Amino acid sequence: MSSTQMPGEFQLIQRLQTILASAAQNADGRQVVAGIGDDCAVLRGARGKYLLVTTDMLIEDVHFSRDYSSLREIGQKAMIVNLSDIAAMGGEPKYAFISVALPASFYLEEFDELWHGLAAVAREYSVLILGGDTNASFPQVEERGLVINITLIGEVCPQGLITRHGARPGDLILLTGQIGDSAAGLDLLQAIEHPSFQEDSPSLQASYYLLDSQYQKALQRHRVPVVRLAESRIISQHRLATAMIDVSDGVAGDLRHLCRHVHQGCHEQQALYGPSGRQGSRVSQKCGPGEAGALLWLERLPISGAVIEIAKVLQKPVLSYALFGGEDYELLFTSPPDLAEKARQMIEQATGTRVSIIGEITEKIKGVRLIDAQGQAIPVPESGFDHFRKAKRGE
Amino acid sequence: MSSTQMPGEFQLIQRLQTILASAAQNADGRQVVAGIGDDCAVLRGARGKYLLVTTDMLIEDVHFSRDYSSLREIGQKAMIVNLSDIAAMGGEPKYAFISVALPASFYLEEFDELWHGLAAVAREYSVLILGGDTNASFPQVEERGLVINITLIGEVCPQGLITRHGARPGDLILLTGQIGDSAAGLDLLQAIEHPSFQEDSPSLQASYYLLDSQYQKALQRHRVPVVRLAESRIISQHRLATAMIDVSDGVAGDLRHLCRHVHQGCHEQQALYGPSGRQGSRVSQKCGPGEAGALLWLERLPISGAVIEIAKVLQKPVLSYALFGGEDYELLFTSPPDLAEKARQMIEQATGTRVSIIGEITEKIKGVRLIDAQGQAIPVPESGFDHFRKAKRGE
Repeated sequence: MSSTQMPGEFQLIQRLQTILASAAQNADGRQVVAGIGDDCAVLRGARGKYLLVTTDMLIEDVHFSRDYSSLREIGQKAMIVNLSDIAAMGGEPKYAFISVALPASFYLEEFDELWHGLAAVAREYSVLILGGDTNASFPQVEERGLVINITLIGEVCPQGLITRHGARPGDLILLTGQIGDSAAGLDLLQAIEHPSFQEDSPSLQASYYLLDSQYQKALQRHRVPVVRLAESRIISQHRLATAMIDVSDGVAGDLRHLCRHVHQGCHEQQALYGPSGRQGSRVSQKCGPGEAGALLWLERLPISGAVIEIAKVLQKPVLSYALFGGEDYELLFTSPPDLAEKARQMIEQATGTRVSIIGEITEKIKGVRLIDAQGQAIPVPESGFDHFRKAKRGE
Repeated sequence: MSSTQMPGEFQLIQRLQTILASAAQNADGRQVVAGIGDDCAVLRGARGKYLLVTTDMLIEDVHFSRDYSSLREIGQKAMIVNLSDIAAMGGEPKYAFISVALPASFYLEEFDELWHGLAAVAREYSVLILGGDTNASFPQVEERGLVINITLIGEVCPQGLITRHGARPGDLILLTGQIGDSAAGLDLLQAIEHPSFQEDSPSLQASYYLLDSQYQKALQRHRVPVVRLAESRIISQHRLATAMIDVSDGVAGDLRHLCRHVHQGCHEQQALYGPSGRQGSRVSQKCGPGEAGALLWLERLPISGAVIEIAKVLQKPVLSYALFGGEDYELLFTSPPDLAEKARQMIEQATGTRVSIIGEITEKIKGVRLIDAQGQAIPVPESGFDHFRKAKRGE
């Protein structure tokens, strides 16, 4: 057998799609609304609703570290990254199926702590844990072999479903909350020599970084990300978005997903958009989805003071956190221009979460272009958080 | 934090149920027909059908070894163990969600081989792969860190659903196919000094065990188990079973699950059973589920010649393979006495798969009792295949 090095995540997914297309020839897809290629698969469910299904695997020392997070926080985060995929499509999370592989050194108290974290998030967001599988992890990794896989099933009304594929040229790009905190928080944790999740330990108190509540917020964003379910509910119920994704790999990378299936040549349809948002979504036959671009307005990016401070202390570019940081789990969505300001206000009023209008979908370019405060275009490099490549390169 | 050793799988599940019950207080369970405690969770689906959901995590060197199986076979098996859970409840598999963690040493050809195995089973059983997550495995395990998690969604008509909880005293116990081959095959593989999945290698050809087609069959049963979907379809459509489970942990252990919720004090109902099988399932208010027992007729156990031969060569008790072997993935089910023989014949005629009547549900004892050829009772020890304990003990 020849030995070809593994390509990056995106190429792997393309390769997979070829294998899977050939596997699917006999299957009955009539109940499938959407398969691979969005945050969730979409199936027809009971009472006219759609089911959303997402799955995520978290691996110790790849996706989390017990040096930086407690087991309770790791359990919380494992649930939250899946909740975020449901939120990204406008849905309500309902049922979780959780598999874990436990290191041989695991004690019962650690098992309890992990599960109390998982259960706390399930309780908070009314998710029922309906199944699971508990296993021993690799015999070769005595101390650090924790794996958590969660499959989360959610529900959405067909008219409330928001995919990655509905943006139109001229749509504005909106973002909840702030970006970069999680990545900056992780970098700060890694920079501190003797990390521990016990923040009251004397060694950590000695570090002046950690005494500052701003830094604490960034650290906490890494350990237990936000869940934008309330914001998603407003967006879905009032049909405020034409396309949506959650920011897991950095705004620049995730925005590229929204640019891949933009409905082009549909300018005349934009006049149809009214307060109900998606009125114009039944476009004429001439319109088809295709790759378009996005302008991202640098000075509008919601970057916290903590990210700016951490970037200064660690001598890293602020933009590497804000655009490529990953694990923000904010909602990134597009709205028709006459609806965007209303969307921003509605979400802010209902949830208290800040919403920023950070750019615009355009068919004049392909990919994402950053526009600085002087109006100059800076091309965004092909980068972003790629779990697979990251670990392969040992970064 | 105190440091309590982990208990066995069964105790862990009980502990989990307590944590999860407290997590579930706010959730809406109206669409949930059955949660944790069977081969699948059961939810209300579209068009009046039920959805079945099961999840299984397979970990390298815990559940499989690349020394004994090709990556294609590992992919096939990962799908099959989930298909078997759907079959155990009378359902049809529909949609799969597959997460993998790949060792750092993995090559693209290995990735392809694994996925071709997963896809081959999906194609054969008309399953659509609708989602997944590809990750790097632990950085510490360069060579052997493969993890595969599959969540499989199936469908069943409400009247075709078969749970673990419908057996009645007097019901006969039936079993498809043969038991013990998979465990005996694994033992044989482990006994051979230089194992390899390339059966045409000179070192393996030199082993006379492997030249015998009987042995080959047992080895293959370990690598790629049977899928009893066709048999399940007959059982479900003709309502031939009062309770069913797939044999993943050995007949003795899995039979105990069927004994835990036997409808007792319902003798008068048995007269109601006719060819349609489940007519009597609406029992009177006086009847309730509770723990009962099973008599297992030793001489009726379907044990292949290969298992008997391998047991002889390796000097192990045949019964340890047949009763506690694990990973047979046969269907174990109960039928009312006047339906059992008909069930046996119908399945054999439709599928060609042998069906054995191997025992009887009784309320006179609790647990499983083995009856030998001389009519003598041999108590079955508390044992069975427990992945978690097995790995913890380093067996």
